[in-house]
Amino acid sequence: MLWFNCDYNEGAHPRILEKLAQTNLEQTAGYGNDPYCRQAAELIKQLCQAPQAEVHFLCGGTQTNLTVLAACSRPYQSIISASSGHINVHETGAIETTGHRIEALPEINGKITAEQIAHLCKAHWEDDNPEFSPQPKTVYLSFPTEYGTLYTKKELEAIRQVCDDNNLFLFVDGARLGYGLTAPGNDVTLADLAALCDAFYIGGTKIGALLGEAVVIPNSKLQKDFRYFIKQKGGMLAKGRILGLQFLTLFEDGLYMQLAQHANDMAAHIKKACQQAGFAFLYDSPTNQQFPIIPNDVLAQLEQTYVFAHIKQIDHKHSAIRICTSWATRPEDVEQLTIDLAKLAKETHATHRVSFIKQ
Amino acid sequence: MLWFNCDYNEGAHPRILEKLAQTNLEQTAGYGNDPYCRQAAELIKQLCQAPQAEVHFLCGGTQTNLTVLAACSRPYQSIISASSGHINVHETGAIETTGHRIEALPEINGKITAEQIAHLCKAHWEDDNPEFSPQPKTVYLSFPTEYGTLYTKKELEAIRQVCDDNNLFLFVDGARLGYGLTAPGNDVTLADLAALCDAFYIGGTKIGALLGEAVVIPNSKLQKDFRYFIKQKGGMLAKGRILGLQFLTLFEDGLYMQLAQHANDMAAHIKKACQQAGFAFLYDSPTNQQFPIIPNDVLAQLEQTYVFAHIKQIDHKHSAIRICTSWATRPEDVEQLTIDLAKLAKETHATHRVSFIKQ
Amino acid sequence: MLWFNCDYNEGAHPRILEKLAQTNLEQTAGYGNDPYCRQAAELIKQLCQAPQAEVHFLCGGTQTNLTVLAACSRPYQSIISASSGHINVHETGAIETTGHRIEALPEINGKITAEQIAHLCKAHWEDDNPEFSPQPKTVYLSFPTEYGTLYTKKELEAIRQVCDDNNLFLFVDGARLGYGLTAPGNDVTLADLAALCDAFYIGGTKIGALLGEAVVIPNSKLQKDFRYFIKQKGGMLAKGRILGLQFLTLFEDGLYMQLAQHANDMAAHIKKACQQAGFAFLYDSPTNQQFPIIPNDVLAQLEQTYVFAHIKQIDHKHSAIRICTSWATRPEDVEQLTIDLAKLAKETHATHRVSFIKQ
Amino acid sequence: MLWFNCDYNEGAHPRILEKLAQTNLEQTAGYGNDPYCRQAAELIKQLCQAPQAEVHFLCGGTQTNLTVLAACSRPYQSIISASSGHINVHETGAIETTGHRIEALPEINGKITAEQIAHLCKAHWEDDNPEFSPQPKTVYLSFPTEYGTLYTKKELEAIRQVCDDNNLFLFVDGARLGYGLTAPGNDVTLADLAALCDAFYIGGTKIGALLGEAVVIPNSKLQKDFRYFIKQKGGMLAKGRILGLQFLTLFEDGLYMQLAQHANDMAAHIKKACQQAGFAFLYDSPTNQQFPIIPNDVLAQLEQTYVFAHIKQIDHKHSAIRICTSWATRPEDVEQLTIDLAKLAKETHATHRVSFIKQ
Repeated sequence: MLWFNCDYNEGAHPRILEKLAQTNLEQTAGYGNDPYCRQAAELIKQLCQAPQAEVHFLCGGTQTNLTVLAACSRPYQSIISASSGHINVHETGAIETTGHRIEALPEINGKITAEQIAHLCKAHWEDDNPEFSPQPKTVYLSFPTEYGTLYTKKELEAIRQVCDDNNLFLFVDGARLGYGLTAPGNDVTLADLAALCDAFYIGGTKIGALLGEAVVIPNSKLQKDFRYFIKQKGGMLAKGRILGLQFLTLFEDGLYMQLAQHANDMAAHIKKACQQAGFAFLYDSPTNQQFPIIPNDVLAQLEQTYVFAHIKQIDHKHSAIRICTSWATRPEDVEQLTIDLAKLAKETHATHRVSFIKQ
Repeated sequence: MLWFNCDYNEGAHPRILEKLAQTNLEQTAGYGNDPYCRQAAELIKQLCQAPQAEVHFLCGGTQTNLTVLAACSRPYQSIISASSGHINVHETGAIETTGHRIEALPEINGKITAEQIAHLCKAHWEDDNPEFSPQPKTVYLSFPTEYGTLYTKKELEAIRQVCDDNNLFLFVDGARLGYGLTAPGNDVTLADLAALCDAFYIGGTKIGALLGEAVVIPNSKLQKDFRYFIKQKGGMLAKGRILGLQFLTLFEDGLYMQLAQHANDMAAHIKKACQQAGFAFLYDSPTNQQFPIIPNDVLAQLEQTYVFAHIKQIDHKHSAIRICTSWATRPEDVEQLTIDLAKLAKETHATHRVSFIKQ
Repeated sequence: MLWFNCDYNEGAHPRILEKLAQTNLEQTAGYGNDPYCRQAAELIKQLCQAPQAEVHFLCGGTQTNLTVLAACSRPYQSIISASSGHINVHETGAIETTGHRIEALPEINGKITAEQIAHLCKAHWEDDNPEFSPQPKTVYLSFPTEYGTLYTKKELEAIRQVCDDNNLFLFVDGARLGYGLTAPGNDVTLADLAALCDAFYIGGTKIGALLGEAVVIPNSKLQKDFRYFIKQKGGMLAKGRILGLQFLTLFEDGLYMQLAQHANDMAAHIKKACQQAGFAFLYDSPTNQQFPIIPNDVLAQLEQTYVFAHIKQIDHKHSAIRICTSWATRPEDVEQLTIDLAKLAKETHATHRVSFIKQ
Repeated sequence: MLWFNCDYNEGAHPRILEKLAQTNLEQTAGYGNDPYCRQAAELIKQLCQAPQAEVHFLCGGTQTNLTVLAACSRPYQSIISASSGHINVHETGAIETTGHRIEALPEINGKITAEQIAHLCKAHWEDDNPEFSPQPKTVYLSFPTEYGTLYTKKELEAIRQVCDDNNLFLFVDGARLGYGLTAPGNDVTLADLAALCDAFYIGGTKIGALLGEAVVIPNSKLQKDFRYFIKQKGGMLAKGRILGLQFLTLFEDGLYMQLAQHANDMAAHIKKACQQAGFAFLYDSPTNQQFPIIPNDVLAQLEQTYVFAHIKQIDHKHSAIRICTSWATRPEDVEQLTIDLAKLAKETHATHRVSFIKQ
């Protein structure tokens, strides 16, 4: 079987394994206090043009989200998120378990707007008894979103403005950050994120690392005592250097962006093949996740060879799936998939072709 | 410098890196649902002679402790631990942050007794208002302890009996489990632990892995819904197989025990050299951590070549240090250290030799 | 000014103050272990026809909700509530702060249905990775709802069935229980609640007491160790008897139901006056809270004499308000209000009369 | 039976019940936003000579402690307390359940010292990895202590200095504050507490109120958003005025201090009688709690008439008990107790008289 269901089916990019092997017998300090973590942090700060930022390395997305958001919040404060946000749908209530409500806003293509956030804040502060509901404090965005879509720089700037107006933190979940940064049409850079966010993270797990997320914290208020949070939440590895070494490999000569670009290119091929086959899409994504709506009989045949993630039943004849590429996706597999897509679509009657508009 | 300060200065045993490289491009399911995690779990269950147990793989010690202890506890229940227990001294209050009090009992050589536990339970239940204090629910032990010492099988059986009498869970922190299992004089086996504990973990990070702890859960009450806890607490890796692969390597042909045995042997050499040099010990440890009390001038000279962990000032002329070996400790380095110890001790006046008895 | 904005503007029913005064110098045990708490508990169990139930007395609604729901939930479990539920809108995230997500379902007239709950459970358990989202465990209903509406016995039975099918607890918030039990058309009794719920509470604060809520727990699983929860959450009064004494007064000869009936009667008069004035209602409530939609100019004049709670702006000419009666509402004040309503409505042009249908 | 076991066996001082009755039918705003709460707060601020302070009214001691300490603490911060502190021994782990460790220091006569606190902070900050243990943030003292003893003004000033040096909050639990303020030899005033503490509370429950504690918050950092904490933790009463009314009664003409003085006077009589009977004391208390050590046979006879709290078995012939007086203690009962004490002590052999020195 060829797996296109997610972007973490394989191990790490080979150069990461090589770096781990080369340095394996060196003796270094533990808990992220080693030279490799320091080098990787410096490198990332440079790329972010954020010399005052702090960079910390954690293990995975849920861990990173719950740790950063704990640092952002007093017990009575809430986190504003798209209803489709990862913290709201795939983290087993980790945020609530650290004591905070998620104010889930309706999303369009996985995104929320500055206006929605401003409206929520206004409603809170204009209430006769604001203290009867959680106080909005942090905006959580994903870049790209769960649906592979992107915020524009202008949209982020507008959200930043609302954050400034309402004394909110802005935190961007970048589990798939590279795929967003290298996407066609994207106008957001690492430096933009460092300038606009109070904290964000650069996802490694889903872009070539064995595991690891690099948290960038430009806001000094959130820097303070952050290592207490990492340790307390179980995110501080004794052999912390294995995270630093991976990010060093990914960033010392542009590997991270190359891997992300590759995945996006592969996804673009698949997207085009779906379009040519006449399939609609649940969301219009420029990144490594594609959400085509496929006739069930076509899907059944494809699934004899390929593994996809089922997203939802559209009607009794069509399903939306997620096709996901990664750094490890082989061009020959994508070639084969596009051929199979074209062939199967042709065999299928025209009546199957639907034009889907998301409600 | 030669580092003897801890057992996580290096990377992983080379065979682990090889296994990761060999399997790197295979595609597997995520989140621990892959064949390697399953194989490793089966293997561990066999070695534990516990076919009904469940085995889960987590990233590090603090994470494992806070996750298992959350699963053991209702909000009003407490965890009984030696005052020197890792959860009480080196985890930033992680247990309290999940809502539970640690009832820290005075320890002798890092250990607590069945009698102490029974006494605490009796005091709780005989109080006129037991509901005014946290209800004791789980006993947390470390094997080996923070001081490298070991519980005997008889001591564990006595503690198990008290747990049965008082409806308590018994959880053993095995961050350094292998060093205990292979220590001279030890009479406890994996199968014993599986028979006596409700849950325990087999530490990988400190015995040859890059990261990873294998939680063994014989008690079905704790098995229920355990994956919710792992996910919620941030311990579920997307590429979960990197944990399974490491434990498979460590256990498929006895590597884990070999590595632990090696470290213990190296530590025994150092222990003997310290004894011959006339140094007393803070604790009498048969495992990979040794706690000699060394004249400060000897220590100062050793520290030009070697890195140790300072434990405490004994008096103005002597310090207790921790010397730690690991799977990666080289015999030639230990040889050199023992020679240097002997030489420096000889040069030092007899007046420096103290006979220390721990109070 | 005459206050109709809520049902807790006054102190307690005079007979409660008398009872407190009569018993004031008696010496009793503290923390709810006194004869009065025992008598009140026995009385309530009899009225509930639930000899096996336990009854505990707490101080207020938020405290009761957070305490009972903590007892219902493991850390990874969620509470299902109408989006308009008190725990979701007026308790400052108290439930999340104890670690649990509220799964807020869309409501109709403040109510949710058995079908919605069943659907949510089905979606959870059919997910490939149910452990990635909080596990639904407890259904939270209010009787009456925040909008003064009532569940029928049949609706509650259907919800109970879904709870049984999905291993859920059912908890009913009865902050205004008496107003529901004595409402026209209601077919639910205390005994029904005791038979259908795992826990529910009988609100005292809003029906004649100074403070106090009586929690009735028919399910023995939730009875276990409940006093630990009360104490830990700060709900156990040293002079606990002041709660027992109040509930004894309210229930020893039917005072509670009389007070509730009085408030409902007063509300019915106001409702009728609003209907006769041609005003629509935001919700159709048979209890002590009425939600008429009133022309802003009429409202402005009324508010020179009366205090109401503003609920929402309907359009630029109309507002929905809450008019609330209580045990202390005086018939002469209601009489005056109905006269004023009729007069002002007549003076207002017919064009103001809108027929509002809640979307 | 005559109860001397605690200071909350009766209801409220009659003038409090009168005040509640007089104002009973007045209509006021809820949730502490009424004129009586405002008046009581103003009065207390004046008595504290702290015009910038905020005063809030909560229901009970555990609730107050957990609410204030939550406001003082970030998730990784700890509370320093005497091991005998109420939060450490009688609150079911409420503080840990809000996520914080209590650093329990050994006490002498229920008190801790500035030196102990300074030492703990020094040890934390000098550790190589301070982030591996909870960061000390708040000092929790009780005035009087659980043993009825008092800090001198000089001792409090020294502790304040250490707090300033280490960026700590100082919070004083005044559940029995009046008994301390009116004790012979006390040199601490309300104004001193307001000047030295970041927050403290004036206990009402144990000094004449039905329930209620007045939290005084001089530090503006802790004032911010404090009502969110009260509401979220379940401490905000709908009929909040019943707390304001009680404190108004207690403080508008000195009643609070008179009641406390009376209890202290009664306790002094009993203390003297115990001394004359030759009994030693577990602690030397100048306040309303006395801890005599009494021969078991004397105790057995006394307990046919009087109720005491058993504190601990001293040896097989003697027990330490707590004798507690309150505003409601009748002089004639104390007179009878002192007569009985004298008589029974005389009948008892001299060999029973022990001179106990607390270790």
